[in-house]
Amino acid sequence: MEQVKVLLNDDEIPRQWYNIQADLPKPMNPPLHPGTGKPVKAEDLAPVFPMNLIEQEVSQERWLTIPDEVLEKYLLWRPTPLCRARNFEKLLNAPVKIYYKNEGYSPAGSHKPNTAIPQAYYNKVFGIKRLATETGAGQWGSALAMACKMFDLECRVYMVRVSYEQKPYRRMMMNTWGAECIPSPSTMTAAGRQVLAEHPDSPGSLGIAISEAIEDAVTHEGSRYSLGSVLNHVLLHQTIIGLEAKQQMDKIGVYPDVVIGCAGGGSNFAGIALPFVRDKIYGKKVNIIGAEPSSCPTMTRGPFAYDFGDIAKMTPLLPMYTLGHDFVPAPIHAGGLRYHGMAPIVSHLVKEGLMEARAYHQLETFESGVKWARSEGFIPAPETNHAIAAVIDEAIRAREEGKEKVILFDWSGHGLVDLASYESYLSGKLEAYELPEEEILRAIKATEGFPRP
Amino acid sequence: MEQVKVLLNDDEIPRQWYNIQADLPKPMNPPLHPGTGKPVKAEDLAPVFPMNLIEQEVSQERWLTIPDEVLEKYLLWRPTPLCRARNFEKLLNAPVKIYYKNEGYSPAGSHKPNTAIPQAYYNKVFGIKRLATETGAGQWGSALAMACKMFDLECRVYMVRVSYEQKPYRRMMMNTWGAECIPSPSTMTAAGRQVLAEHPDSPGSLGIAISEAIEDAVTHEGSRYSLGSVLNHVLLHQTIIGLEAKQQMDKIGVYPDVVIGCAGGGSNFAGIALPFVRDKIYGKKVNIIGAEPSSCPTMTRGPFAYDFGDIAKMTPLLPMYTLGHDFVPAPIHAGGLRYHGMAPIVSHLVKEGLMEARAYHQLETFESGVKWARSEGFIPAPETNHAIAAVIDEAIRAREEGKEKVILFDWSGHGLVDLASYESYLSGKLEAYELPEEEILRAIKATEGFPRP
Repeated sequence: MEQVKVLLNDDEIPRQWYNIQADLPKPMNPPLHPGTGKPVKAEDLAPVFPMNLIEQEVSQERWLTIPDEVLEKYLLWRPTPLCRARNFEKLLNAPVKIYYKNEGYSPAGSHKPNTAIPQAYYNKVFGIKRLATETGAGQWGSALAMACKMFDLECRVYMVRVSYEQKPYRRMMMNTWGAECIPSPSTMTAAGRQVLAEHPDSPGSLGIAISEAIEDAVTHEGSRYSLGSVLNHVLLHQTIIGLEAKQQMDKIGVYPDVVIGCAGGGSNFAGIALPFVRDKIYGKKVNIIGAEPSSCPTMTRGPFAYDFGDIAKMTPLLPMYTLGHDFVPAPIHAGGLRYHGMAPIVSHLVKEGLMEARAYHQLETFESGVKWARSEGFIPAPETNHAIAAVIDEAIRAREEGKEKVILFDWSGHGLVDLASYESYLSGKLEAYELPEEEILRAIKATEGFPRP
Repeated sequence: MEQVKVLLNDDEIPRQWYNIQADLPKPMNPPLHPGTGKPVKAEDLAPVFPMNLIEQEVSQERWLTIPDEVLEKYLLWRPTPLCRARNFEKLLNAPVKIYYKNEGYSPAGSHKPNTAIPQAYYNKVFGIKRLATETGAGQWGSALAMACKMFDLECRVYMVRVSYEQKPYRRMMMNTWGAECIPSPSTMTAAGRQVLAEHPDSPGSLGIAISEAIEDAVTHEGSRYSLGSVLNHVLLHQTIIGLEAKQQMDKIGVYPDVVIGCAGGGSNFAGIALPFVRDKIYGKKVNIIGAEPSSCPTMTRGPFAYDFGDIAKMTPLLPMYTLGHDFVPAPIHAGGLRYHGMAPIVSHLVKEGLMEARAYHQLETFESGVKWARSEGFIPAPETNHAIAAVIDEAIRAREEGKEKVILFDWSGHGLVDLASYESYLSGKLEAYELPEEEILRAIKATEGFPRP
């Protein structure tokens, strides 16, 4: 009987997050204030985030200690097991060993609580009473709802209206954890009311929801805003995935040739990858691949430019691969990957050749996910299916090259609340969402006037 | 930082299931053939189950070896962690230590795969090509769908029509794992057609679905029937939960004063409890409590009698606590607990004073479940909420008596696919489903003619 899982006991959980800023061969471009065009100062962000998180956002320290109060909550499900996907390997019939971190074991079913919990904790410690955020498919909103309840904070989530209606179960998760979930655009904010005045039937978008959540946070006493991806401190918190994975692979004396994660805003991909990027910086040979949707090909097609994080231009200008803040991705089921930009850290590392990116069509990602579910059991989230498609790609390459390969990837979450998308796929109704070349070119052209780093 | 989880590594997984028949102080009454009134013979069951499972059903061996092929699949998620519910303890403010087995970690989200996998395996080994089963809320149907796919068997699930319509996500899980899910009553069987002829709008019932599944199995070449609870071999497979829990508690030098499980057909309750019942038989002091719905109070109110397992009277007569095979429980959301009878093993042990039973109202179970979700994170299945209500009861007693107590319970599954029931509860729309005393008396009266063991 062969070993399937590598476990870490509670006392083996990492005590520090890893901050890649300390190891970058070339420093990152700073975010810019859209008004002055100068680097954003900490105090510019103070109405939006608590100062302790802003300090993490700009920190250059290599290791940041995880507070005991956060570790205590992490231990509800962390460390997550590192699993060997032997049944999937057999199916692929390729000379590969496939390991995955099962982040679907969290109460919210994805990696999102890894940052929701510290964000709620730091806000609480800073004296904040209430958080506002936005969510697309609801993975992030549900994670923050749970974290706020654990630290006794109020929580309001602006959920893109079309998702609010399509994915009622994620809204119910938020309610069960005591959060208020509002379909966006709403009448709660000036931004929302303005959209509704012009488009009473607006299905909403992540851009509108971000604008509503930021406005909500800065106009409510004792409130702050919380973001589930893109920013440095969010990626920092997610490094616990990769740190655990490294410890687990060390235990069995294995090192990956390839590290894979799906990438929307970048926090899941960075979470598994950054500790391995560090090794790569110091000479280790490892390929690090982000899998994105071909209908939102930020890293594979977008230019590297300064752009806003949201459509309403309320955020600082971030240096990143972007299709332009006006780009509206097709309504693929991997809602967590429908983002016009990419985390500045991930963008920087792709630009520096330390990470690479591949794009996958919706249909091939679901084909990959069904293969996974039917061999390994666990039904993956639509986002996770992108990583699985990349794993299959790498396995086929290994077979063709006749080379043995160890693949590690982040199984970012389960798809039990996204089953309607599997139903569409299995009944042949799932859209391919091929992005026409002229649309990509139009998006790229729209970014021409953006400042270049 | 205090330890939250006690883990077992892959190589510590139990290699044998525990069969309590070998330790019973008084042997159980045999199931009877309804025609002859004599004990059922193995060959009577042969058209319905493969002989290797029938052998397990009647085995008196104390330990039955788990085949490597089954262990290999168990290892996808087993051993499950034993967790200390520190946050919930704080909330209760009682002198208790609460430990729970998280069976929600399985790919299907409940304890059901513990028996689905060996049942699929033994059928495969016996040369069977296809299984038919029934399911209420869908926990069992989805588990068997997954297991059949893993062992390359075809699978058809007759799902009670009202659940088929109310819980589309469980049907989608079955489809994702490649099974066929048919709303019952259906036109696929004579039993179904007969019901439809009389009641074209029939919402279906577990009794009808069982009849359809058995008829399907015995009329299709190479097919057998599979049941997710009640029978001896099903409970046997579930003992892996309690065996792991005992090992885990041994590791930290703790023994429970109370062991709790929710009980519908009895397999989850027996799964956690039987290894501790063995200790009790040999003199250990431990209270073992099954939590059932007050709207279906089988153990707390039903007489101990010979009754059919299904409404259509296709099964042997089983010696058990029963409200009569015609009793139709109210449509509570804990669909897995809506069963008129109780596993013969559990019934026998309750009768012998080795187990006890308590009944809980739907509203108090959801109140308990929401408290759990808001402190421990994980959202429990409606069935699991019954066990949590019993845990709260025991904690309050301990507080009142000023006695320290260690409580162990089986967290039988998560409620992510049952969130609509939480929505009802949170919006104040959940029904209490008080069972009027005259209805209980009427059900008890209906069993008067049943043979008595």
